[in-house]
Amino acid sequence: MKELKVSPIKHGTVIDHIRCGMALKVLKILGLTEEPPTDTTSVILHVQGSKGCKDIVKLENKELKKKEVNQIALISPEATINIIRDFEVVKKYRVKLPDTLVGIVKCSNPNCITNLGEPVEPKFYVESRNPLVLKCFYCNRKLEDISSNLL
Amino acid sequence: MKELKVSPIKHGTVIDHIRCGMALKVLKILGLTEEPPTDTTSVILHVQGSKGCKDIVKLENKELKKKEVNQIALISPEATINIIRDFEVVKKYRVKLPDTLVGIVKCSNPNCITNLGEPVEPKFYVESRNPLVLKCFYCNRKLEDISSNLL
Repeated sequence: MKELKVSPIKHGTVIDHIRCGMALKVLKILGLTEEPPTDTTSVILHVQGSKGCKDIVKLENKELKKKEVNQIALISPEATINIIRDFEVVKKYRVKLPDTLVGIVKCSNPNCITNLGEPVEPKFYVESRNPLVLKCFYCNRKLEDISSNLL
Repeated sequence: MKELKVSPIKHGTVIDHIRCGMALKVLKILGLTEEPPTDTTSVILHVQGSKGCKDIVKLENKELKKKEVNQIALISPEATINIIRDFEVVKKYRVKLPDTLVGIVKCSNPNCITNLGEPVEPKFYVESRNPLVLKCFYCNRKLEDISSNLL
């Protein structure tokens, strides 16, 4: 089955060390579950690596926006971003969750000012990183189900 | 990025020539969007082949059930199924939609006998293959949105 090998990408981004089972949520963050990609995109689920199971996403001709990287950090804090140009990794970094998140996740409290149609963007503090706990800047509600509340 | 190549699978199934943009629906048919796979699974979206754009899904250590093949035929009639053992293709066939579909899709008519809690399995005739038109055996309703009504 040589013809079905996935060849390395020429230009684009490889998101590696995604937490096992989270790759489809990464596709959702990138908007690719609603609108299929227009360039080749590979998703490899449940890869056995040296540090256990992981997922990988390879995006041809695409670089990530800062908001997308922050959302990936929320659901997969060990992920690494590899930027590829001419088949070479020109930049490699681990995602890093900032201390404050603005416009990345929404508050689960329906009465929070951010959910009442006012021009107030959702804002969270990272209260703890491991386990990950986010706290709303406006109503102090702790956010439990992060992946369902991504904006 | 050689270490990120997807190697050929040892045992399992390659679903090739999936209609462009439909690979995630194939994952849904296989139940892998709700429950992540426990073996390596690769999804390659928007591959430029000789006949235009296609998607590919590679499933390590998995063979498809007949119902799954019929559901794939509904959303991707040109798909081919390659069964792999010891890195060799031991069987290759194109999906084929049967003339009658029982228990594969549900009727969109809420008053159809198959939607009233009776012990009657949904049954459809394939009225036309190109474009694909299904007709309910019980209420004659034509099914328009097939991919949203897969069982």
